[in-house]
Parts: sequence; structure tokens; C-alpha cells
Amino acid sequence: VSHPPDRATLRIDRGRLLRRLEDLAAIGKQSDGSCARLALTDADRDGRDLVTMWMRDLGLQVSIDTVGNVFGRWAVGEGLPVMVGSHIDTVRTGGAFDGNYGVLAGLEVIETCQQAGYSPRRPVTVAYFTDEEGARFAPDMLGSLVFAGGMSTEEAHDTVGTDGLRLGDELARIGYLGPVPCPGQAPYAFVELHIEQGPVLDVEGIGIGAVTGVQGISWIEVTVVGQSNHAGTTPMSYRRDAGYAAARIAVKARRIALEIGGAQVVTVGKIDLHPNIVNVVAARAVLTVDLRNTNEQALQRAEAALVATLLEVAADEDVTITTRQLARFEPVVFDDRVIDLVARHAEAQGSSVLRMPSGAGHDAQMLARMCPTGMIFVPSVKGISHNPAEFTEASDLEAGANILLAVMLDLADTDVLEATR
Amino acid sequence: VSHPPDRATLRIDRGRLLRRLEDLAAIGKQSDGSCARLALTDADRDGRDLVTMWMRDLGLQVSIDTVGNVFGRWAVGEGLPVMVGSHIDTVRTGGAFDGNYGVLAGLEVIETCQQAGYSPRRPVTVAYFTDEEGARFAPDMLGSLVFAGGMSTEEAHDTVGTDGLRLGDELARIGYLGPVPCPGQAPYAFVELHIEQGPVLDVEGIGIGAVTGVQGISWIEVTVVGQSNHAGTTPMSYRRDAGYAAARIAVKARRIALEIGGAQVVTVGKIDLHPNIVNVVAARAVLTVDLRNTNEQALQRAEAALVATLLEVAADEDVTITTRQLARFEPVVFDDRVIDLVARHAEAQGSSVLRMPSGAGHDAQMLARMCPTGMIFVPSVKGISHNPAEFTEASDLEAGANILLAVMLDLADTDVLEATR
Repeated sequence: VSHPPDRATLRIDRGRLLRRLEDLAAIGKQSDGSCARLALTDADRDGRDLVTMWMRDLGLQVSIDTVGNVFGRWAVGEGLPVMVGSHIDTVRTGGAFDGNYGVLAGLEVIETCQQAGYSPRRPVTVAYFTDEEGARFAPDMLGSLVFAGGMSTEEAHDTVGTDGLRLGDELARIGYLGPVPCPGQAPYAFVELHIEQGPVLDVEGIGIGAVTGVQGISWIEVTVVGQSNHAGTTPMSYRRDAGYAAARIAVKARRIALEIGGAQVVTVGKIDLHPNIVNVVAARAVLTVDLRNTNEQALQRAEAALVATLLEVAADEDVTITTRQLARFEPVVFDDRVIDLVARHAEAQGSSVLRMPSGAGHDAQMLARMCPTGMIFVPSVKGISHNPAEFTEASDLEAGANILLAVMLDLADTDVLEATR
Repeated sequence: VSHPPDRATLRIDRGRLLRRLEDLAAIGKQSDGSCARLALTDADRDGRDLVTMWMRDLGLQVSIDTVGNVFGRWAVGEGLPVMVGSHIDTVRTGGAFDGNYGVLAGLEVIETCQQAGYSPRRPVTVAYFTDEEGARFAPDMLGSLVFAGGMSTEEAHDTVGTDGLRLGDELARIGYLGPVPCPGQAPYAFVELHIEQGPVLDVEGIGIGAVTGVQGISWIEVTVVGQSNHAGTTPMSYRRDAGYAAARIAVKARRIALEIGGAQVVTVGKIDLHPNIVNVVAARAVLTVDLRNTNEQALQRAEAALVATLLEVAADEDVTITTRQLARFEPVVFDDRVIDLVARHAEAQGSSVLRMPSGAGHDAQMLARMCPTGMIFVPSVKGISHNPAEFTEASDLEAGANILLAVMLDLADTDVLEATR
């Protein structure tokens, strides 16, 4: 009779993890080094086929739901499964790690246990969710949203992509329209390992982020309508300059972020002027304002300050300003016990830890509606993501996967969640 | 023996002028009502063919120079000709009057004289200059620039258009590569009748602008390079936001105009962010700054203030800012005697008059290098131009053409320019 190893001594195989990351990144590779596996394209199908094959190679039971979320269940033990995972779709200029890392690290922790002959008390499921990026079909995190019951399968299927194609048709076309109904069955717990996609861990020199939640997001599209005029012949006092109004709004947006302070961030990332010609006063400007905060009340104050700014600019510049809410998510708070587990194991394995919110949206925020949920961040060099220059050191990838392994096993093998339930 | 009429009693035929304007505007007409006769396109050729035919119908001697400027000479009298004219090319969304009005009014004043049996002492030439708009081949006012000796024929021929085609080739293709060398022979005087393309006359309710000169122009393209970052994950203090820097520059540009005051205008008409995505801090911004003033020293102060702003923004925002001069023209001052003639005849014919600079560039500013030059402005409703909504009342078009007739005849028939020469 062989004794199972102490789970605290288990360590993942870094080389194997890196090889899988590399093999998946080769699918949809572009000439500039980026990955383009937009959701439900042929490239996404090829990526799905590869990861699904790896699931089967590990003996996992593969199931697919009605929005194409894929689950590989290691059917050991009993009860609800501990779920780990993320997504494998990318933006048009995606990196190798965003999403993929969390899914492939999930396979890696299972293979590590299997090779060590370690069988946890609860099943473990590795999941990848459809269309997390939202780069082809809006909204982002669509697959996990439907899984968690936030959108119906029918509405998801009728979503039309940037290329005019219907999500349901594309799911069927690539062979990933599955039978498992949504919303899905809540897992016992969910843990998502992900690169930070921001600069904080890298700049601060910290190894692991124990993610406390996800910032609330408000995306507002602002349309300014003024009067097109000749730049040479129109005295300044006669102007109704939509471009100048847009610039005033963008400058004030920064001031709003600083006035609200704390975790508040505000970004004007998109400005389109019309006609956008050197010698013509702009008739129209469309800009976007991205406001985020971990605190819902503060986020609402920022939104109110923006509205006040728009009213002021409209009056001052004699322009018409209208807005459209492009997205709105309240802040999400992760489970304290899962956050503590992440921090404790990171410290135990010699990593420095920062408890931090996520500034980006993740599938975990949808799963948090269903079950105790947490996230583990590893550093992104210079915070660069959605870019071929996206990079995380192999040692950081390894450390993150080992912490995922430890957290997953504590959840699958102990009653850490039961104590205070 | 019939006596020639008193020239002060001559009046143009408004219906005939309007019909010619309408016939020319029908060429290159778009579905939105605008005219698209970009320089040296098939549509421009068709417009040229029509106007050239009208020149021949009036018995004018037609000549074409090496950059396609076309001259119709009424070979009466002796000495250097009085030249009137403008251009008949348009921007992509041109109106019916910009340029065309000055050329067709030139034909109209000659036909009026001819029908009245009035023959002036000096020859009269109607000209239309190539590529005044610069919408296909840069720089604008190219034809008159070459005519005045400011650019060689060779350089003009080698100019490549926005569609990649060479100006010299296109000239030959449409049959307007003429034999008359450039620079051309200086006329006795030059008068250009034009719509204001600005709102001043319309808003102030004034009938005629006696144009004192053309504003100096400085076009500066500003490129800001920062760092692309995730809008959610990047704290405000870490940002090097090219979009925010661009907005600061655009806001400060307005302040520069107000600080310099007087005739100073400053416009940021074009802003392009990259990648221009709602949730990405912009890595790069390219914007244009259009500065104009009738006073060269003041214009230079405005340019210096812009440079100081760029240095300040670059330091504050930790971005790199580079500039490129897209165009630079010193202010042009028209001939006082011609300006006086315009004002005097406008008053004599019952029009209110404003002595005003032109905010837009015109062929007349090139001709001003060669001979006594002036311009006559008529109101543009709401200052709208380069737009299908460009409009001037028929009564204003008639009044302007009658003043052109009177000024032309004074120049052709008297020694008004000789007295102080």
C-alpha cells in the first residue's frame, strides 16, 4: 500500500506548463507575434480542439454547455467540484498568457496530482468560458455571464458580432454548441489564476496578488454636436467647437479621478472628431469615458461629476451633448476565505503578496454570483496586455500555478469553506 | 457712330451668372448635393472643358500653362491685362460657389461689356488656377503658386496625390498640360471675387468685404507618444496617457488664441488616438494645430506659446512630443489702392462694406507677389463652406459681380494705379 503524498509538498512541472502555453499560443499566431483567436472563429475552434484534447488526455470528462463553455471534470471524490479556469479566446492582438494561463495551469495542477497519485476528496473541474474578451461579441465575459444566469442562452445566441454573424450560428459552425443547459450547476468554489494585466505587481516588485474583487465599471459614450466651420474665417467667439468641448471633457475626466481619489480611475481612450480635418472646426465629437472603482458609492459620485461636467461644457460651448451607457457593472467582492487562502499559501511558498482589486473584468466576477470565488494574480511586465509584448516571467508563472494547486487542494480536500458557512 | 456707354451704368446679368453657376455645379454633383471636382480628376476635366468652351464662346484667346492654369484673354486695348479669376476645383464635399463664383463672374463682366459695346483700354483676362483646394495634391493654391514663381513646374509635376498619382501625369491625362511657361507674365492687376467662407459678413449683416489681405497660416502636426495601458488596472499616477496630453494641448490652444487676442485664431480640428479603444490608455496621439493671424509677429508669439505648452505637457505627463510643420505662410497684405476701389464702388452701389482680412487662403495671395491685387467678399450664409449647404443669396452674388465689374473697369480704363506708382 503506497501512501498518498503530503499535498503541501506537491509542485507543478514548469516545463510542461510552458510547453502547453507555447503550443496554444502558436494557434492564431500573427506576423507581429500576437495571437488572434477571436471568439468562435476558426482559430478559436483550433485552440478549443487542442485544449479539449489535452483534457481528454488527462482522463477528464468533457462537457459543453449551450453557449460553448467547456468543462473538463476530474471525476474523483464526491460532491460539488472545485472549479478552476478562465478563457482561451483572445483579442485581435492578444498575448500568450491572458486567459490561457489560468486554463492551462488548471490542467497542470490536475496532472501534477495525478502523477503524484494524489486524489482529492472533491472532484475538480477545469473550465474555459466562451467570449471572455468581448472582442467579437458584446458583452465581454459573455460565456460566464450565461453560465451564472445573467443572460439567457437565447439572448446569447442572438448576439451579433462585429462581423455581422450570429453567435449561435458560429457556435454550431465550429462544433461547440453543447447540450448542457445554462445557467449551470454552481460549483463548490471557483478560483481563477490570471496575469494582472496591470503594472502594480511589476512596479512594486511583488510576486502574487490576492485579488479582493473586481472594480465596478461604467462605460459612457459621449457625443458632442457643435458646428463645423472654417478654421481661418471663424472668429473664436463664434465657434461651437465639438473638438474643443471633447478636449475639455477629457481634461476634466482626469480631474474627476483625482478628486474622487482612492481606487478611482477614469480614462478617455477613444476620441473621434468629424470631419477631423486640420482646417475645419469639428462639427461632432464622440468620445468614451471609462470610470472604475471598487466602491459603488464612489463610482456613482464619479459618474455624477461627469454628468455635471457635460452640462457645464454644453452650456459654455453652446454644443449639444448626449450620452449612451455602453457598460455598467457594480463592483464585485470575492470571498474572504478564498482571498485568505491565496495570501496564506503565497506567503508559505515564499512569495510577497498584495491584496488588490482587479481593474479588469474576469470570468471570476460572474462565478462569484454562484459560489465562493477568488483570483490569483501574477505580475505582467510593465502591465502590458492585449499586445504581443505581454509577458510574465517563467518563475512567476510557476509560482502562480503552485499557489493555484495549493488553494485548489485546500478547497477540494478540507472543510475550510464549511467552518463559517 | 454709336457712343460707348458710361461704364458706371453697366450692370451684369444675374440670371446668366446663376445659370452658369448651376451648369458648372451639375458636374461632379453627388447624391448629397455636394460637388466633387477634385483637381485633375475626370470631373475637374469636365468642369474645365465647360468653362473653356464658355471662354471661347466669348471670343477669348485661351491659353494653358505648364501646370494647367487656364487663361481666357479678351484681347482688347493694349498693355498688360487686368486679370480676374479664381479656381474651379473643389474639395470632396464642395459647394457651388467656392472658387467657381469668381471665375464665372469674370466671364459675366466681360460678356456684360461686350453686349454693351464697351471696350476697355487694357485687355482683360479671366483665369482659373489649378488645384487651389489642395484636396488631392498638396499644397493648396498650387497652380497660382507655380504661376507666381513660388514653386517650379518640375516640382509641381512630381507632386503625388492622395491617390498615389503624379500631378504631371494627371495633367497630361486630362489634356490640360499646356505650353505656356511658368512663372507667368505678371498682369497689370489681379482681382478675385469670392464667397467669404466665414460667418462675419452674414452675422454682421454686411454686404461686401473689401479684403485687406490674407491671414498668415501655421499648421503644426503634433505627435504625442506615451504608453498604452489597461484603463482598469493602471493607477492614475502610473499613466503616460497620450490622449490626455492631446486634450490638454487642445484646451490650451484655445487659451493661446484668447491670450494673443485680436485676429488670432487657433483650431485643433484633427485628433487621432491609437489604439483608440474605450478601455485602453492611448499610446499615441496625433493632432493638428491651425494658427492664423494677420500680423506676423503675433502669429510667431502664438507659435512660441504653443511650443511652451508642448514642453510643459511633455514634462508633466512623461510623454514624448514631436512636431512637424505642415504649412507656413506669412500674412499677405493687398494693395491699398485696390482695397479702396472695392470699398468705394461697394458704397457707390449701395452696399455696406467691411474692410476685413481673409481667414482662408486664396489664389490672390499668390498673385499679390506679382502685381497690385485685391479681393471682394460676398456673404456666406452661416459661414458654411466646403459643404453642400454652402449658400449665398442671389442678390449678394449679383452685387459682388457688379462691384467686380466696376473695379475691373476702373483698373482697365483709368490710371488709378499709375498715380502713386
